[in-house]
Amino acid sequence: METVILTDPPKASAETVEAFSTIGVATIHEAMGRTGSISALRPIQQGTRVAGTAVTVMSWPGDNLMIHAAIEQCGPGDILVATTREPSSHGMFGELFATGLQRRGVVGAIIDAGVRDTQELRDMGFPVWARHVNVMGTVKNTPGAINVPIVVGGQVIDAGDIVIADDDGLVVVPREQADDALVASRARLAKEEATRASFLEGELGLDRYGMRPVLQDLGVTYRRHPAAEQA
Amino acid sequence: METVILTDPPKASAETVEAFSTIGVATIHEAMGRTGSISALRPIQQGTRVAGTAVTVMSWPGDNLMIHAAIEQCGPGDILVATTREPSSHGMFGELFATGLQRRGVVGAIIDAGVRDTQELRDMGFPVWARHVNVMGTVKNTPGAINVPIVVGGQVIDAGDIVIADDDGLVVVPREQADDALVASRARLAKEEATRASFLEGELGLDRYGMRPVLQDLGVTYRRHPAAEQA
Amino acid sequence: METVILTDPPKASAETVEAFSTIGVATIHEAMGRTGSISALRPIQQGTRVAGTAVTVMSWPGDNLMIHAAIEQCGPGDILVATTREPSSHGMFGELFATGLQRRGVVGAIIDAGVRDTQELRDMGFPVWARHVNVMGTVKNTPGAINVPIVVGGQVIDAGDIVIADDDGLVVVPREQADDALVASRARLAKEEATRASFLEGELGLDRYGMRPVLQDLGVTYRRHPAAEQA
Amino acid sequence: METVILTDPPKASAETVEAFSTIGVATIHEAMGRTGSISALRPIQQGTRVAGTAVTVMSWPGDNLMIHAAIEQCGPGDILVATTREPSSHGMFGELFATGLQRRGVVGAIIDAGVRDTQELRDMGFPVWARHVNVMGTVKNTPGAINVPIVVGGQVIDAGDIVIADDDGLVVVPREQADDALVASRARLAKEEATRASFLEGELGLDRYGMRPVLQDLGVTYRRHPAAEQA
Amino acid sequence: METVILTDPPKASAETVEAFSTIGVATIHEAMGRTGSISALRPIQQGTRVAGTAVTVMSWPGDNLMIHAAIEQCGPGDILVATTREPSSHGMFGELFATGLQRRGVVGAIIDAGVRDTQELRDMGFPVWARHVNVMGTVKNTPGAINVPIVVGGQVIDAGDIVIADDDGLVVVPREQADDALVASRARLAKEEATRASFLEGELGLDRYGMRPVLQDLGVTYRRHPAAEQA
Amino acid sequence: METVILTDPPKASAETVEAFSTIGVATIHEAMGRTGSISALRPIQQGTRVAGTAVTVMSWPGDNLMIHAAIEQCGPGDILVATTREPSSHGMFGELFATGLQRRGVVGAIIDAGVRDTQELRDMGFPVWARHVNVMGTVKNTPGAINVPIVVGGQVIDAGDIVIADDDGLVVVPREQADDALVASRARLAKEEATRASFLEGELGLDRYGMRPVLQDLGVTYRRHPAAEQA
Repeated sequence: METVILTDPPKASAETVEAFSTIGVATIHEAMGRTGSISALRPIQQGTRVAGTAVTVMSWPGDNLMIHAAIEQCGPGDILVATTREPSSHGMFGELFATGLQRRGVVGAIIDAGVRDTQELRDMGFPVWARHVNVMGTVKNTPGAINVPIVVGGQVIDAGDIVIADDDGLVVVPREQADDALVASRARLAKEEATRASFLEGELGLDRYGMRPVLQDLGVTYRRHPAAEQA
Repeated sequence: METVILTDPPKASAETVEAFSTIGVATIHEAMGRTGSISALRPIQQGTRVAGTAVTVMSWPGDNLMIHAAIEQCGPGDILVATTREPSSHGMFGELFATGLQRRGVVGAIIDAGVRDTQELRDMGFPVWARHVNVMGTVKNTPGAINVPIVVGGQVIDAGDIVIADDDGLVVVPREQADDALVASRARLAKEEATRASFLEGELGLDRYGMRPVLQDLGVTYRRHPAAEQA
Repeated sequence: METVILTDPPKASAETVEAFSTIGVATIHEAMGRTGSISALRPIQQGTRVAGTAVTVMSWPGDNLMIHAAIEQCGPGDILVATTREPSSHGMFGELFATGLQRRGVVGAIIDAGVRDTQELRDMGFPVWARHVNVMGTVKNTPGAINVPIVVGGQVIDAGDIVIADDDGLVVVPREQADDALVASRARLAKEEATRASFLEGELGLDRYGMRPVLQDLGVTYRRHPAAEQA
Repeated sequence: METVILTDPPKASAETVEAFSTIGVATIHEAMGRTGSISALRPIQQGTRVAGTAVTVMSWPGDNLMIHAAIEQCGPGDILVATTREPSSHGMFGELFATGLQRRGVVGAIIDAGVRDTQELRDMGFPVWARHVNVMGTVKNTPGAINVPIVVGGQVIDAGDIVIADDDGLVVVPREQADDALVASRARLAKEEATRASFLEGELGLDRYGMRPVLQDLGVTYRRHPAAEQA
Repeated sequence: METVILTDPPKASAETVEAFSTIGVATIHEAMGRTGSISALRPIQQGTRVAGTAVTVMSWPGDNLMIHAAIEQCGPGDILVATTREPSSHGMFGELFATGLQRRGVVGAIIDAGVRDTQELRDMGFPVWARHVNVMGTVKNTPGAINVPIVVGGQVIDAGDIVIADDDGLVVVPREQADDALVASRARLAKEEATRASFLEGELGLDRYGMRPVLQDLGVTYRRHPAAEQA
Repeated sequence: METVILTDPPKASAETVEAFSTIGVATIHEAMGRTGSISALRPIQQGTRVAGTAVTVMSWPGDNLMIHAAIEQCGPGDILVATTREPSSHGMFGELFATGLQRRGVVGAIIDAGVRDTQELRDMGFPVWARHVNVMGTVKNTPGAINVPIVVGGQVIDAGDIVIADDDGLVVVPREQADDALVASRARLAKEEATRASFLEGELGLDRYGMRPVLQDLGVTYRRHPAAEQA
């Protein structure tokens, strides 16, 4: 792997990112044709949703040298997205990193490894999604890369892509698909609102989505429960 | 597997279900001779306990067609219990389903798969226990079954059985054992209350349960810690 | 394994334990040369930190006889630390045990197995760290040992050692290293405070820790992102 | 749970069991409508297939008292199927048990826990499927049950049911469905043989199963790879 | 996700693929700068190494329709590489698929899901690497894609890339890097051979790689074991 | 952690080690009061048993510098036992290391991390037990320690302790308990031989171990299977 720090990647526009921050991860994922979702990392807080442009970091397990180098590459509206060459449970990220990032206007951190200082991070309002909570410390001996494409939870994330994160997990919107994805997400929101209204009035999905003939075609039959018959 | 929807299963009585909703999962499980417990699914909320009569659903992984069909089979006091033919991490259940179920008087959902819209579900007060949190969407292409016996977390659950769920997990009370289990649970509650009072006054379990001779019979000896001897 | 209850182990002093209770697990772990940390057990509550002297328990899976015997060995300032001979998901600990321990001045419990009554434990303010939440009950048939050295999450814990636990997990401070570890932890706290202040003013870790030449020596190069070049 | 040993359960006939022993687990599972399969346990040997009538055992974790009691309930053509009240990694079964079972004509053992003496078991030709390999020993202190229905890997197994096991895992054929399942399995075998012959001659499943219109109906399109277009 | 079958992807040359088939996965991975390795899938056989050009398949969990469609896209020297939209333990691949592929000259299959008929696959000499062994059958209801980039075990694999697989796991060589990777792999082989010869003569890696000063610089000290001192 | 290489640790005698190499891991574990067993690491070969005196290694994840340093500390009859500060899936060990160790008379390697070149290791007859098989390469940047006590699979292993490994896993015999453990293991072997002979003649464990009254005391009852009653 080339050990390089790529600077000044093109990024999705701040307006688009802002717009995504009001839409749920599930809705955006569905609007993009059920793509982009990551479930392997969990939030350390509850009730927070953020959207940011990715600054990607590839580190050696147990070594956060490249996260130090990545801070400098982060600016307002960014979200730090860090992974390791093999799975790592080390506490690669904590409150001191968050302090530096928060001052630079970074909206959150996605750590495909361990995180520590979780109470302090919640107290300071810096949201983090991580694979592990673990205090085990790190060294700063081995090089890596910044702003190269990385894979997190089975999804490719490149520098400048939009990452939206909430209690459900994460979704990645590739930079070049951002505008289309936003239009589709808003359409999906509207559709969900209409469905919600209909369900509140008692309509069934079976009817709304025309599934009754589907069930019939698939050979699903209705029959009284045998114990009901005996009763 | 037969693709069938069994309607009108006999159910435990509403009075019995109501009575169970005030007793903890651990107590009921103990009262039934340490049976019926499920720990594999976790609550997405904290501090909620519900009891309901099971409407069971067997779906194909990543396919929630049968959950749509199951909504119609659910009524007041029911709890939806859905699983899949093989393990599935898809987000099989979310806020729109909950909207429909809540309107019908359903008390909660048990999803042996993934769930999404977790913040919305908490906000609307519809309790869910699930194996995964994941936004990944589903298709509606493959048939399954409703109100047949299913296995969740190693326990058989049949339509009409009572499922009680709280922060500790789940317990299944088979319909035909419900009355006996309720009597036993209330007896266990009383016993726990007496034990609690005794412990608050400083009695030890060793004495209360007569365990000192048990320890002796099993060959457990008491000895001063060697470092204490050296000191 | 010898089935023995060792009484009166020497313990770290109450003053030292008290001092540790105000320092985070991550800081203490770092101050001890990145040793002593346990991440495998998770807190059932949020926002609580405790420090106590360990009363260790080795039980048979699914059998909490020795925890009953251990209550009597616990006193003010202690923390109960229980594990099993092989991994066990049984609910080995719950609210009745906590009632007894709380009355004796015990500060918390570390259960390398399952725990139940989690809502009740939170309500009564007795903090617990555990590997599982599970109501499955236990028997009292098989002997074990108390206050012998045990291994939890890869760390050896002996009677009288200090265990500090917070939202990040656990750290074990061996009794005989307690004073040195406290001095080092306070020094680390001061260093973290200085770093925090510097980060809040915008200094980078790259500069503060002198990492720029390290990156250069390791062959990490800076280059404009290729897509930025194309733009 | 009732602590009982049920004797003389009705069993599937020896002829039927014998017939199943020549058919693969996958084929039988498909022939039964894709039911009955268990994948959680793995064989400790390679290239062996057995079919037997189940003698079921429910034990306490780390306690093999009931397996001792079960030996007496086993006879020619049986297969021992043992599980525990909660997951157990103990070495619940080994060569001495196998010696006793082999002498009684038992065809193999299914252990939903740990097994030991694996080399000796292979040497003596007694096949075992297990969840763990682990030497950790057991006690004989806690009661359980024999020939009651148990759940292994999500499947209910009752005394007298047929269990077929090979390198792919296990399938359970309920006693009362055995004759129908055998007829269906033989039909499936014949169908597979015809498919194999056709595939050997180059026919495609797409054509044999009429899937081309399915793909078209589902909106799957064919297009030259973009890189091929550029070439 | 677009449901498309991309035909005629450009492929690495047969000569290059053939050359890779004689080099171990570990060596190729190292030669490419420690990239491309996949460890999550295990071989169902022992002692086999293959190299092929990837035909990639993205399926719905529990649905092998697209694998049927992929057979037609496979030819001599190819290796089938199939994954699913979410993790799937279904037996997505077995002996009948292998029969068709073997006739077409396909060298093996990489199944990021379950596989069945493992003994038959070994008997026919068709090598398979998979995540699970499981007989659970599949449906053919949901569309997917063929020859699009997929992610397996954290690595991106595109149509026409070279996949080499042996007992250690897999390595992916991107098509456009194949020639460079082959040169580097051969150089690495030569270096390993020289190292092996030197180690056989007793040279230490400490000396051969000049690590003694590294240890010293890192502060590693040598000291007689304290128990040796006491002796 | 102190970064130190402890030289010349006292070791169990070669005669004792040789004697243990003919006794199974399960037997030794039982003879030591059911202690010392490790099941988390699996052999990469089948049918091999070795016993050796431990040379312990503590490395940083993904960094095998200390294994290089450990080779020099290994001699005839030793077994290399390596772990990492946090879990590591890197291929920390392979055929080149084995070449050097084999020349020095080392009997095998225990790697609590990943291993590669598994086919080559089998071919050269150097036995290895490991947690993962993975080709992912390592760096040599971070110090560690040699011949200090380490924890593997929950067991403490110190330099000079005896490790016995076979298809069932591992057992650690502390150096100072070696002679007693050998006597006890031989006694256990004799007891097992007598039991085997008795089982071959049809005696039941129920009778041999006097378990019938135990079952009765525990309340286990015998009853004809209800379906047998109906027949």
